[in-house]
Amino acid sequence: MSIVVRQVERADPAVVAGLGECGVATVHEAQGRIGLLASSMRPIYSGERLAASAVTVSLPPCDNWMIHVAIEQLAAGDILVVAPTAPSDAGYFGELLAVSARARGGAGLVIEAGVRDVRELTEMGFPVWSKAVSAQGTVKETLGSVNVPLVCAGALVLPGDVIVADDDGVCVVRRAEAAEVLEKARARVAAEETKRARLAAGELGLDLYGMRDKLAAKGLRYV
Amino acid sequence: MSIVVRQVERADPAVVAGLGECGVATVHEAQGRIGLLASSMRPIYSGERLAASAVTVSLPPCDNWMIHVAIEQLAAGDILVVAPTAPSDAGYFGELLAVSARARGGAGLVIEAGVRDVRELTEMGFPVWSKAVSAQGTVKETLGSVNVPLVCAGALVLPGDVIVADDDGVCVVRRAEAAEVLEKARARVAAEETKRARLAAGELGLDLYGMRDKLAAKGLRYV
Amino acid sequence: MSIVVRQVERADPAVVAGLGECGVATVHEAQGRIGLLASSMRPIYSGERLAASAVTVSLPPCDNWMIHVAIEQLAAGDILVVAPTAPSDAGYFGELLAVSARARGGAGLVIEAGVRDVRELTEMGFPVWSKAVSAQGTVKETLGSVNVPLVCAGALVLPGDVIVADDDGVCVVRRAEAAEVLEKARARVAAEETKRARLAAGELGLDLYGMRDKLAAKGLRYV
Amino acid sequence: MSIVVRQVERADPAVVAGLGECGVATVHEAQGRIGLLASSMRPIYSGERLAASAVTVSLPPCDNWMIHVAIEQLAAGDILVVAPTAPSDAGYFGELLAVSARARGGAGLVIEAGVRDVRELTEMGFPVWSKAVSAQGTVKETLGSVNVPLVCAGALVLPGDVIVADDDGVCVVRRAEAAEVLEKARARVAAEETKRARLAAGELGLDLYGMRDKLAAKGLRYV
Amino acid sequence: MSIVVRQVERADPAVVAGLGECGVATVHEAQGRIGLLASSMRPIYSGERLAASAVTVSLPPCDNWMIHVAIEQLAAGDILVVAPTAPSDAGYFGELLAVSARARGGAGLVIEAGVRDVRELTEMGFPVWSKAVSAQGTVKETLGSVNVPLVCAGALVLPGDVIVADDDGVCVVRRAEAAEVLEKARARVAAEETKRARLAAGELGLDLYGMRDKLAAKGLRYV
Amino acid sequence: MSIVVRQVERADPAVVAGLGECGVATVHEAQGRIGLLASSMRPIYSGERLAASAVTVSLPPCDNWMIHVAIEQLAAGDILVVAPTAPSDAGYFGELLAVSARARGGAGLVIEAGVRDVRELTEMGFPVWSKAVSAQGTVKETLGSVNVPLVCAGALVLPGDVIVADDDGVCVVRRAEAAEVLEKARARVAAEETKRARLAAGELGLDLYGMRDKLAAKGLRYV
Repeated sequence: MSIVVRQVERADPAVVAGLGECGVATVHEAQGRIGLLASSMRPIYSGERLAASAVTVSLPPCDNWMIHVAIEQLAAGDILVVAPTAPSDAGYFGELLAVSARARGGAGLVIEAGVRDVRELTEMGFPVWSKAVSAQGTVKETLGSVNVPLVCAGALVLPGDVIVADDDGVCVVRRAEAAEVLEKARARVAAEETKRARLAAGELGLDLYGMRDKLAAKGLRYV
Repeated sequence: MSIVVRQVERADPAVVAGLGECGVATVHEAQGRIGLLASSMRPIYSGERLAASAVTVSLPPCDNWMIHVAIEQLAAGDILVVAPTAPSDAGYFGELLAVSARARGGAGLVIEAGVRDVRELTEMGFPVWSKAVSAQGTVKETLGSVNVPLVCAGALVLPGDVIVADDDGVCVVRRAEAAEVLEKARARVAAEETKRARLAAGELGLDLYGMRDKLAAKGLRYV
Repeated sequence: MSIVVRQVERADPAVVAGLGECGVATVHEAQGRIGLLASSMRPIYSGERLAASAVTVSLPPCDNWMIHVAIEQLAAGDILVVAPTAPSDAGYFGELLAVSARARGGAGLVIEAGVRDVRELTEMGFPVWSKAVSAQGTVKETLGSVNVPLVCAGALVLPGDVIVADDDGVCVVRRAEAAEVLEKARARVAAEETKRARLAAGELGLDLYGMRDKLAAKGLRYV
Repeated sequence: MSIVVRQVERADPAVVAGLGECGVATVHEAQGRIGLLASSMRPIYSGERLAASAVTVSLPPCDNWMIHVAIEQLAAGDILVVAPTAPSDAGYFGELLAVSARARGGAGLVIEAGVRDVRELTEMGFPVWSKAVSAQGTVKETLGSVNVPLVCAGALVLPGDVIVADDDGVCVVRRAEAAEVLEKARARVAAEETKRARLAAGELGLDLYGMRDKLAAKGLRYV
Repeated sequence: MSIVVRQVERADPAVVAGLGECGVATVHEAQGRIGLLASSMRPIYSGERLAASAVTVSLPPCDNWMIHVAIEQLAAGDILVVAPTAPSDAGYFGELLAVSARARGGAGLVIEAGVRDVRELTEMGFPVWSKAVSAQGTVKETLGSVNVPLVCAGALVLPGDVIVADDDGVCVVRRAEAAEVLEKARARVAAEETKRARLAAGELGLDLYGMRDKLAAKGLRYV
Repeated sequence: MSIVVRQVERADPAVVAGLGECGVATVHEAQGRIGLLASSMRPIYSGERLAASAVTVSLPPCDNWMIHVAIEQLAAGDILVVAPTAPSDAGYFGELLAVSARARGGAGLVIEAGVRDVRELTEMGFPVWSKAVSAQGTVKETLGSVNVPLVCAGALVLPGDVIVADDDGVCVVRRAEAAEVLEKARARVAAEETKRARLAAGELGLDLYGMRDKLAAKGLRYV
């Protein structure tokens, strides 16, 4: 039952890049508030914002063997999305794996578990979103699968889906919907531009969004 | 039962500013070790230290409508203190609300829930203390109240109370006691100045605080 | 039952320093994947990496009296390792204790509880690994012990053991094994140097570590 | 600042008893969905349902001295509501305190901390809602206060407020509002009686509550 | 985007019943250690063991409207599987909904959130697996979907999948694989029968499973 | 480095039995408030109270092989004390292992991880204290050690130490100190007998323990 799927369709690189510019909160809104990974998934350092195509890795708890297998499947601009089949906070990934992943075009890592060598990863500028930091090592004894559908931090991720990640967390966009979501996300960004200017000038959201009547109708009283 | 209280007394701005200079740990000690919010309340970025008058916002879980209402009630130097009526980690507040709050004089946000647009908030230098970061959006369906007493992260906060916040967390000081607490806090700061110099010179706390006899009386043995 | 042990053997300072250069993940691997403290122990600021000899402090919950006692027992290059006898997140340690510890040669703090004055500690460059940040004060009423064996964050620490700590967490090395662990750690560092170069050049771990046959034997299928 | 307030007004015993019959979920709804303590407050054994007047106890973390003080203030049918001033899971309360509380008329305990002697408390039928079970002992060194307002598990409790507790958790009702809340709660109970019968007969909530049009108007599609 | 799928294929009732007899641990093993929901999902009372076909309910946080909609879609022997689109511990389900669900053939509830009326549900013998108990009410404002694929407590559940649940937790079996998994599960049960007898007679697993040589080969030493 | 120590000294069975009668809270107090395991260690069913000699098992995360090895080392009245070398909630132990352990004289299990087959273990009356219940299986790939010192749930346990466990949790008593601790525990039980009678008769702890003067001296005021 352990397989490696070699052929994975990716989204158009321009669409992927565009989603990365929009960021997690906007993309999440644009696709109807779905696809967020659990908020326990945090960046190991601040300031990164990217989108990339998912190479998924389902592996046994406390065993990182399949990450080595997965690195061979990376194409330029891909991101590893790793989920153990049972909860674990061990450190599955460190500097050497990051060096290898980068050499093969890997753009980063999303892992529902722990990582180590955080200082080195930060110096390399290799972005990681994880639920833990831990130096605890793992073994290489049991197989898992690469490029199969999996649940990572509460979200279903399919191989080739677009992963958007920044300081707000991680969001997954279905490959087939990426272009449409990008369009909606860009529309949101554009609309926010105008709102930002008006709000910055002191106009209230109550007026900008026309909320006063609705609030009154619901029974809000000012005293 | 949903109300907005327009008239809220604030503490003397000089007192508020003074408390901000003292910081959370000192103010908390000065008022008898009360008023701390739960330590799960963390700044979204490091290095801020401020005090401000609370505009409180009680709102339903996963609904941020009342934050728009509350922004109108901000006076210069106020801070929003937001608590949902049921536990929630969603992202109630982001960049546009921060732009609007700042335009109306808002100094920051304390929220027992999540926020998003962390990168943008950090770039703006808009300080937030929250228990989570999450891109998860909220709705605008149900009313809450503004400037009513509420419990935020385990502490009772009244409208107009002084909120002191820094990298150590968040502390609330009753408006009527703010001047007295400031006096005691400043006395602590002054006393610490002398102690710091003596400790830095190598004098031991055991001697500086005269602890040796008391330790011996309690039965401490050196072996 | 409350004692202070004055005489504690330390490891060779050159060995201690060498372990600090290797870092937590490498040292942890070198000693056979033992000795890690729980991953809930996090640095209060990023970028520190050190090794130091443990002065252990067992104290009652919410009572920091014994830290004052322990500071007198510090030798240059020692680190305080503090564990309450019942779980607690209060703030046992702040700037004044850090000033005093530093004046007596203390290199830092590991505490399975909370600390405060995080801004000041960061400015001082006084490294702390803790499980919480909290301004909550503690009392000085009940005795504990200094330089006795204790369990800190799930790991047994003996006085004089070597503590290695960095952004990945905290690891303890038995004093008597420190030289041998250092030797193994340096061997790992050297071996990693070669691997890093080959991986950076695009060679796969699958080939570098000769994994392909073993994976096939376990039944991995490529589809 | 440590005080014991001797005179506390209680609600009418018949009202208190009536609220106990309604249970937590109903009372919570009847008073507009306010007053619930955090869901981390769980009964130490199942099947109890009661209401009682609160004797509040604010005490330092890991110190149960004030519970002895509070027991003297119990009137028949009162319940102790205990909250440490800093988070703690130690065991503040056990069999002997329960024997004493019961001898003075105490009906039970709500504590945002731990208890011990769970087997004995269960055999006695002394109901406790706590956030932990722990054998960890506490000290008797520092004062607190009895019958002062406090925040327990996120809810503000005033001395004399009515505490309703069962397997669903704990809810507080303001003393002055208790009669009105009881009236509303009983109305809910009566209304539920009819609904229960109709639902049990197979009628759908969609029809009973007339939801179909509203769902269609919101855009729900059946496929 | 809010839909109710009316037609859902279920597994053969005899297969479903058979899986229920095997229990969660056996079924989970039989299907290759996949399909477990997170261990935070616990029964509200002990001793239930069942299998049932999933009617899935994806709903907004703190809004239980769609459960009313879902009850109409229940067939005899179905179980509701409910997951909010953002984390929440509120009480989405209580006695009246259980009465209604049972009247329509519902066998129980799995919900990645909270429930209330635990005493009444226990008296009814209506089994629930949830991650929380909370009296906190929810609203009926926003749509969700019924009988769509969803992630519940970390596991992907499709409408019509078989849910197996007991005191060990909850496991999902794909509808199409249910018969094959049952066959394997029954084989395990049969094999365990023999092992149980031999182990009960004092034979060691080391001998029964022939582990001694393998342990020695791995280097285990007896001292 | 993986060893099985065959020869372990146990405490006098009469002493062990005596400690079991005293229970966790009393024993913990009698030995000076040390030795408690973390309060996350809970019984899988209520009402058990026992003491037994520890056979310790240190094993890799998600691998239960060494439990089979340990069962051979059980003597009548021993209890397995199991701790993985990295945090894990998987289900390491179920009915068949319990049958085997019991056949070899095993009295129960303490495990800082998960167990499964809870219904069967409860029916057998095989007591378990664990930090989780999970059906998640483990592998048999990597060695650990039996009867070595280990840290379990924050407490150091040596082979042959006495484990006392009941509904309040788990406490470890050093083998060499067991007789002395029992003596102190029995003294406490006897002393409590008198106190219980006086408290049940309505005497206050304030008077029984002579606390009034000390409270007044500390400044407690009655208002």
